[in-house]
Amino acid sequence: MIPRYTRPEMARIWEPENRFRIWFEIEAHACDAQAELGVIPKHAAEAVWERGKWEVERIDEIERETRHDVIAFLTNLAEHVGHEARFVHQGMTSSDVLDTCLAVQLKQAGDLLIQDLDGLLAALKRRAYEHKHTVTIGRSHGIHAEPTTFGLKLAGHYAAFARARARLVAARDEVATCAISGAVGTFANIDPHVEAHVAAKLGLTVEPHSTQVIPRDRHAQFFAVLGVIASSLENLAVEIRHLQRTEVREAEEYFHPGQKGSSAMPHKRNPVLSENLTGLARIVRGYVVPAMENVALWHERDISHSSVERMIGPDATVTLDFALARATGMIEKLVVYPERMQKNLDDLGGLVFSQRVLLALTQAGMSRENAYLAVQRNAMQVWRHGGSFLDLLAADHDVVQHISRDELAPMFNMAYHTKHVDTIFRRVFGEG
Amino acid sequence: MIPRYTRPEMARIWEPENRFRIWFEIEAHACDAQAELGVIPKHAAEAVWERGKWEVERIDEIERETRHDVIAFLTNLAEHVGHEARFVHQGMTSSDVLDTCLAVQLKQAGDLLIQDLDGLLAALKRRAYEHKHTVTIGRSHGIHAEPTTFGLKLAGHYAAFARARARLVAARDEVATCAISGAVGTFANIDPHVEAHVAAKLGLTVEPHSTQVIPRDRHAQFFAVLGVIASSLENLAVEIRHLQRTEVREAEEYFHPGQKGSSAMPHKRNPVLSENLTGLARIVRGYVVPAMENVALWHERDISHSSVERMIGPDATVTLDFALARATGMIEKLVVYPERMQKNLDDLGGLVFSQRVLLALTQAGMSRENAYLAVQRNAMQVWRHGGSFLDLLAADHDVVQHISRDELAPMFNMAYHTKHVDTIFRRVFGEG
Amino acid sequence: MIPRYTRPEMARIWEPENRFRIWFEIEAHACDAQAELGVIPKHAAEAVWERGKWEVERIDEIERETRHDVIAFLTNLAEHVGHEARFVHQGMTSSDVLDTCLAVQLKQAGDLLIQDLDGLLAALKRRAYEHKHTVTIGRSHGIHAEPTTFGLKLAGHYAAFARARARLVAARDEVATCAISGAVGTFANIDPHVEAHVAAKLGLTVEPHSTQVIPRDRHAQFFAVLGVIASSLENLAVEIRHLQRTEVREAEEYFHPGQKGSSAMPHKRNPVLSENLTGLARIVRGYVVPAMENVALWHERDISHSSVERMIGPDATVTLDFALARATGMIEKLVVYPERMQKNLDDLGGLVFSQRVLLALTQAGMSRENAYLAVQRNAMQVWRHGGSFLDLLAADHDVVQHISRDELAPMFNMAYHTKHVDTIFRRVFGEG
Amino acid sequence: MIPRYTRPEMARIWEPENRFRIWFEIEAHACDAQAELGVIPKHAAEAVWERGKWEVERIDEIERETRHDVIAFLTNLAEHVGHEARFVHQGMTSSDVLDTCLAVQLKQAGDLLIQDLDGLLAALKRRAYEHKHTVTIGRSHGIHAEPTTFGLKLAGHYAAFARARARLVAARDEVATCAISGAVGTFANIDPHVEAHVAAKLGLTVEPHSTQVIPRDRHAQFFAVLGVIASSLENLAVEIRHLQRTEVREAEEYFHPGQKGSSAMPHKRNPVLSENLTGLARIVRGYVVPAMENVALWHERDISHSSVERMIGPDATVTLDFALARATGMIEKLVVYPERMQKNLDDLGGLVFSQRVLLALTQAGMSRENAYLAVQRNAMQVWRHGGSFLDLLAADHDVVQHISRDELAPMFNMAYHTKHVDTIFRRVFGEG
Repeated sequence: MIPRYTRPEMARIWEPENRFRIWFEIEAHACDAQAELGVIPKHAAEAVWERGKWEVERIDEIERETRHDVIAFLTNLAEHVGHEARFVHQGMTSSDVLDTCLAVQLKQAGDLLIQDLDGLLAALKRRAYEHKHTVTIGRSHGIHAEPTTFGLKLAGHYAAFARARARLVAARDEVATCAISGAVGTFANIDPHVEAHVAAKLGLTVEPHSTQVIPRDRHAQFFAVLGVIASSLENLAVEIRHLQRTEVREAEEYFHPGQKGSSAMPHKRNPVLSENLTGLARIVRGYVVPAMENVALWHERDISHSSVERMIGPDATVTLDFALARATGMIEKLVVYPERMQKNLDDLGGLVFSQRVLLALTQAGMSRENAYLAVQRNAMQVWRHGGSFLDLLAADHDVVQHISRDELAPMFNMAYHTKHVDTIFRRVFGEG
Repeated sequence: MIPRYTRPEMARIWEPENRFRIWFEIEAHACDAQAELGVIPKHAAEAVWERGKWEVERIDEIERETRHDVIAFLTNLAEHVGHEARFVHQGMTSSDVLDTCLAVQLKQAGDLLIQDLDGLLAALKRRAYEHKHTVTIGRSHGIHAEPTTFGLKLAGHYAAFARARARLVAARDEVATCAISGAVGTFANIDPHVEAHVAAKLGLTVEPHSTQVIPRDRHAQFFAVLGVIASSLENLAVEIRHLQRTEVREAEEYFHPGQKGSSAMPHKRNPVLSENLTGLARIVRGYVVPAMENVALWHERDISHSSVERMIGPDATVTLDFALARATGMIEKLVVYPERMQKNLDDLGGLVFSQRVLLALTQAGMSRENAYLAVQRNAMQVWRHGGSFLDLLAADHDVVQHISRDELAPMFNMAYHTKHVDTIFRRVFGEG
Repeated sequence: MIPRYTRPEMARIWEPENRFRIWFEIEAHACDAQAELGVIPKHAAEAVWERGKWEVERIDEIERETRHDVIAFLTNLAEHVGHEARFVHQGMTSSDVLDTCLAVQLKQAGDLLIQDLDGLLAALKRRAYEHKHTVTIGRSHGIHAEPTTFGLKLAGHYAAFARARARLVAARDEVATCAISGAVGTFANIDPHVEAHVAAKLGLTVEPHSTQVIPRDRHAQFFAVLGVIASSLENLAVEIRHLQRTEVREAEEYFHPGQKGSSAMPHKRNPVLSENLTGLARIVRGYVVPAMENVALWHERDISHSSVERMIGPDATVTLDFALARATGMIEKLVVYPERMQKNLDDLGGLVFSQRVLLALTQAGMSRENAYLAVQRNAMQVWRHGGSFLDLLAADHDVVQHISRDELAPMFNMAYHTKHVDTIFRRVFGEG
Repeated sequence: MIPRYTRPEMARIWEPENRFRIWFEIEAHACDAQAELGVIPKHAAEAVWERGKWEVERIDEIERETRHDVIAFLTNLAEHVGHEARFVHQGMTSSDVLDTCLAVQLKQAGDLLIQDLDGLLAALKRRAYEHKHTVTIGRSHGIHAEPTTFGLKLAGHYAAFARARARLVAARDEVATCAISGAVGTFANIDPHVEAHVAAKLGLTVEPHSTQVIPRDRHAQFFAVLGVIASSLENLAVEIRHLQRTEVREAEEYFHPGQKGSSAMPHKRNPVLSENLTGLARIVRGYVVPAMENVALWHERDISHSSVERMIGPDATVTLDFALARATGMIEKLVVYPERMQKNLDDLGGLVFSQRVLLALTQAGMSRENAYLAVQRNAMQVWRHGGSFLDLLAADHDVVQHISRDELAPMFNMAYHTKHVDTIFRRVFGEG
């Protein structure tokens, strides 16, 4: 979490102000529930809401003495609430506060990331429709394969981020549980009603089984999902980087006036956004295994997970938030060059239609093996020396025995490859 | 995937026989659909079903020449089907076969792992109910905290694996898609009807957008979920390892007659199953990041994912299958020592009731700070020098000013800590 | 890199002030070399040293416009240097500055970490000698095995960190190279002499082959070594956590007066330092794979590595620095309880001598198999029901046929197990 | 470790035959040393060497009963050696055998990998010299930067693998230690002389401090180094993949006669070897973190590391061995297209000389800022609309005020960029 890759809204979730605000709400709602149960006086709960205040600096000061953050907070809170403060935190442990707070923070972070995904989905959809029929070469192994459209490319990324969104919704809901169950989760000193009350007030579900802590497989799943989303972002970024490379140049990241590509080479226009996204994906993936290592705590809990979460909680969510926003901007402003796409398509002299010819030859009665050899023979000729694939085929004795030039010519036709674009768009976007 | 950690049922999924069987079904069902569409003759489709055969060794032989596995399979198939074989694989690419096959295999593996989880869940539930009221000390940071029950411990692991099951069902469904869309996913040479037909026959859903390959975020999510499950297994294993250590000895893995703990020290009884599970968890987690790195393929696809999947597909599922079965056996036969649990509970002279005393003192009007100091003062005395916590408290001037010995004594009571066991069992198992 | 786990000296390496200071030195030394070569005027080089200044805020301001940090720095520098500034950065690229700067920073960080290791080694050595002869039980699989000494335990960790130090020295030297080779590393616009001059001035070696960037396998190796060191720290931390658990209590982290172990349970004394180290180790390990993914840049370079390094450069070094310092303090102040060690040793009624008896029986002519069975039979009796292993053996018909009670008794002797402590200390510390 | 990615020589190291052979040698050499010390009779040691035999199937059979591999081996060995067998393994633990054996295996594997690296280095060097002066465009960010030579590209990879070799030699030596120190490493039941003797016979160094096991940071470092080497392989593979892509086509993997690129598209020639290497690198990297997690064993040892090593020991070394051999073959047979390199170089109309013009303008008195703007202005024109960069510059009023066309023309010259090739080759290869 460094300023360069941080947006304020996500950063705020992890700032002390937000954390202490959530801590306060947990404690104050718990007091309400305890008062309802008659465990503490009603006026004590009211006093907490009325006089409850805290100061980040003062908490830090007390923590330096007590070496315990929740006790420091409660001490500072007591300085404002006064005598009734002794009813605060009754029967609770620090983890009741800390883990429920983390659940709220991850829920807030999850909500923001879902918003980010919605932004990216909207951008991808708009550009996909814009280029629904912009023909371009599809490549497997980096080698020209058959035509597709640029809109189809973007639709594929849209589908990936729609899956990402569904996974994130599930992971957010899984991590958003409230535990107020006491020292080892037995509710010995606190009634389960308190937990239910606080959960409802904070928009969380009740953790069915906690052991002082909320079980960490929930968090591991959350960070794993962020890692998968980051990987889908990398996939999008790698596509853009390829399209922008000098020999391809079918699309380019928007270049701001005043921007300098290179201090040394004034002609450079580099895909720095998508390269950056590639790196950010590595970072977010790097947090997945530590989050999984956090699951195996000793007995009812140990605190080894805490330092990991203090770092990856902010780092993973802030970095992914930044990356999603950056990807959205990149897609929104992406400069697309349909004429370069056409030029690259034409560059292989019609080779991209080789499969269609192959199929036609087998349909016309040639064995698959012989058809393959005939097509490959002529294809390799074009690949190595250029020229027109159609012309070569039409001059090949074995080929024309089965299909005439007049039958071959109409096979070299883009529309053949784009005839199902509507079908796929309908599948991806739920509309044509 | 080494024999020592392999069970035959899961291994079979990854053997050539199963793979070629699936390939054949994909091709044969595709022929049916093509025949329906009139693209190939009906009798050709029938011939494939009737005469379709293959031999693993022959395929290997052909592959050594062609260096292409699907072509080798088709060539061998053609040797049996004869002339009609030229209608097989029409308009399809190898990936249509390979990726759909992988989807079937991962679905089969997922089904088996779900069965494994059901077995583990059943074992955990049975033992949890058996020890629902077996009191034992709960520990945080490895330090005695407050009493809980052994049944509650197991219930927590049950809840974790119930979550694991839900995640795995989702991940399995996500990865079980069928793609038969041609060279770059445009259906240029094959009608989407074929895909729909094959999907339905194989129990898969249709991949809405493929690009020769099924997008790899689906697979990354699948392997990530396996990594989280492995981490939950490690959590269970670490618990058993702790319980079995000499100073604790509250539970032990079953020791077979004839088993030797150590070649050098005949007295040793080691928790080797749970230690082994700890290692297997590391292995399964190690496959998560490679699976995520597989997502960012170049353009419509490259084949870098393939070698990764050839290894982690079998390795991750076989290892997790073995680990789940081992964990199930370990839990089923776990030897539990309630009397040791009681002895360990008693060992701290009543310190485990410190929180209850603290709360009572604040209820009786002492400030939280002073109550904490009074309780801690006496607790540290017991911790260092042994003795009865109750006796010390009853001799503490500050304490007895607020609570008499007669009021203190009933606070040292296990039932206080187990009163909500039913509540938690109801939450976890949906029944009391 | 969060304040809680950050020490100022390491943090300073990564602050803008240090970075810009290094940038300036690279540029100014390069000017000297260029002036020597006659490429730029001598007075220009002098002017840079004399008038060279910069302001972090001003650089930030310019960067917001140019979106390029090195250009922003050079522009700000030029504002101070004036007309001669046009001779600065001649023939260089940003990466010449950035990569050489990173090399200096990692060297500085490496130096600091080596100092940290020296501190930890000194603490381990002092405590190892202090407890050279403090007998304690050695445990394999968490099960009592045979006696060892607490000094030997610490000596093992000393040896691990001595290895860590050697690896870090090698990794630091490997990463400390200087590249000033121009746009794609061909020295087209800058003479290799400049690189050699700057390298010598900054205490770096010359990078033999750069491609605008210094190859990233050097950095990957550096971060991998940090990951291995962090794992050795975890090993030490896990040992302390085990020793402090309630049932063992052979050692304890120092507990500050005023420190609170638990807000709810005043009796708790938790091994929070070593638990924290366990978590920090996970974090540092999490940076290893991203650093390795950084190696495969596109062609002569892409900038995907940059965001990764901006985060893990500081995070990995700051976190490991903090962890090493924390471990050192933990070891220095560790409270050791030799009497508990003795008590735990005695707890198994002499079982820890089982191997010696086994060997004596085979020496006395019993087959290994029968000796094993005899020893195991009596050992299991003690394990389950307590009692004296010696008494049981002496009452075993098969045993006493080969060895009498009078021969057995002296085998139950600690000195037998500590006779080679000097040998091992000499190997580890190079002295007795 | 699957047949497809396995070479027999490396696989053999991990087969039972080799393992049992090493076990036998450890035991037999240990007997010699014990006999020298007078601990066992000389004839017993001789009997072991003379009659020592074992059968893999018989060992498996016994292990199914005892569930302990070393005991099973010793039992089988005793069946052949007879009565003297009771002197075998005296004072040793299974780990003395297992860990020393693993050290031998990793040393053997390391030796083989070093051989592989030597093969790759030789291939890279040969091709580097072959194309020392083959001019090609250097690319940063995928964008044409400045000319370099194809030999220089390969020289960079040579330098990376030379570093890899040095790291591997160090890691192999670090992991090649012998421990025969008994149950917890105290030599209670065995004299250190035995360890020294066996170490010398097996070409290992003595482990200064073992605790039944050899410390796992040694192994972690070994596997980390394999991960870094795999990443360097990926770097090489990514370069080849880029060069082979249709729009670049500057180099191609050798295509066997009879090889089929695609079952559907007969024109395809895919860089499948380098794509495969990319995937294999992910796999090898995936083993690094598990190896690091193995370091933190409980107390003197637990056995969690064992299952990890049983899998990653073979998998990592076999996969990397295969990958290095594949890379060597790929480089040896790589088809290089210098004329395509020249064509691509020319494609940008001279833009690649932009930095030289920039420098010349500043040398001629233009401010750096103005020079940058002038060069960028004309460069962007060429980038977008093609044409000759030289012509545009020569028509730019601001430019020609400082440099005439006659002065500009000679700046468009390849030799300027290759003048230091000898220097770099000398640095990398130690010769010109």
